[in-house]
Amino acid sequence: MPTHIPPPAPDVPGSPWRTTGVRAGYRNPWLRVTEYQVTRPDGTPGSYGVADLGTNVTTAALDDQGRVLLIRDFVYPLQAWCWSLPGGRAEPGEDVQAAAARELAEEGGVAADDWQLVGTFWLSPGITTEATYSFLARGVRAVPASPEPTETITTAWAPLAEAVARCFGGDIRDATAVLALLAARERLAR
Amino acid sequence: MPTHIPPPAPDVPGSPWRTTGVRAGYRNPWLRVTEYQVTRPDGTPGSYGVADLGTNVTTAALDDQGRVLLIRDFVYPLQAWCWSLPGGRAEPGEDVQAAAARELAEEGGVAADDWQLVGTFWLSPGITTEATYSFLARGVRAVPASPEPTETITTAWAPLAEAVARCFGGDIRDATAVLALLAARERLAR
Repeated sequence: MPTHIPPPAPDVPGSPWRTTGVRAGYRNPWLRVTEYQVTRPDGTPGSYGVADLGTNVTTAALDDQGRVLLIRDFVYPLQAWCWSLPGGRAEPGEDVQAAAARELAEEGGVAADDWQLVGTFWLSPGITTEATYSFLARGVRAVPASPEPTETITTAWAPLAEAVARCFGGDIRDATAVLALLAARERLAR
Repeated sequence: MPTHIPPPAPDVPGSPWRTTGVRAGYRNPWLRVTEYQVTRPDGTPGSYGVADLGTNVTTAALDDQGRVLLIRDFVYPLQAWCWSLPGGRAEPGEDVQAAAARELAEEGGVAADDWQLVGTFWLSPGITTEATYSFLARGVRAVPASPEPTETITTAWAPLAEAVARCFGGDIRDATAVLALLAARERLAR
């Protein structure tokens, strides 16, 4: 499995935009904003702020009974406790499947023998360059969990069909989890 | 249909985080970063940058033959031409369905009589507060399109099943489009 290849810098051949300048907008270890000075497709001048949020990896881990591992954590930007799937950020240069396996172990306390990449999606491509890599993992076994200092996680196993129903019912709303659950279901139905 | 209610400011009751300070990180009309000084759940100090990207609305518009309206545009952050669905940003205080109808008309040249909200998802809730509201629209008719100066759009109608297959095949990767297509299919299957 390769590492994530970020989008190219402006301007690629065939782009209807022209980029005339660039400056750093904001930077912390998890979020970097770059502000480009641009000429828009209609010829008017403007600026375009692009947010680099890194690369997300998320895993639908299924046990022998067809149950998927869900996690619940407090999500600071939403100020709410939310259900999602084990996942997180691939470090720069880190193999995305290795990153998914690392997050599954850290957050979920689970290792898996059988991995499939079931989808790659751009989460908010009008402003960010963030991709999510959605994995289906089977052949699971328990390993020691090691959550980060920012995490206050509980876990639960639920039938995959029930988890999918919770996506459409409003109980699971994290796009990274919803996309991985739906892509996993699609793959299993083939 | 209501307007979008943004997440509350830190700290809500029951949060395992403590917020001790706040400063503006970056701001343009489409992206605002706020940096919070925090005490993490384990008691260590840190900072948390939260990106407000506004609120997305996206529509799967179906014609009488069960075809969905796709759009193709150049996506500056990805530096690539991408297929997605008509959609965009709800203005602050704008009714989300009205915003979806406005974007459908502007980008797609289509109006619709029958609207259903089929899902609400958080796109990247570890860092952003952005929600996407996914709509299914039927009873469509042509109206004049009026794309923004930043848009260079072409449109196409495709059978819904084909569009869904393109989501899992890697040809449609914008999460707002994928979520709306899958939520629309789910609603229609009930």
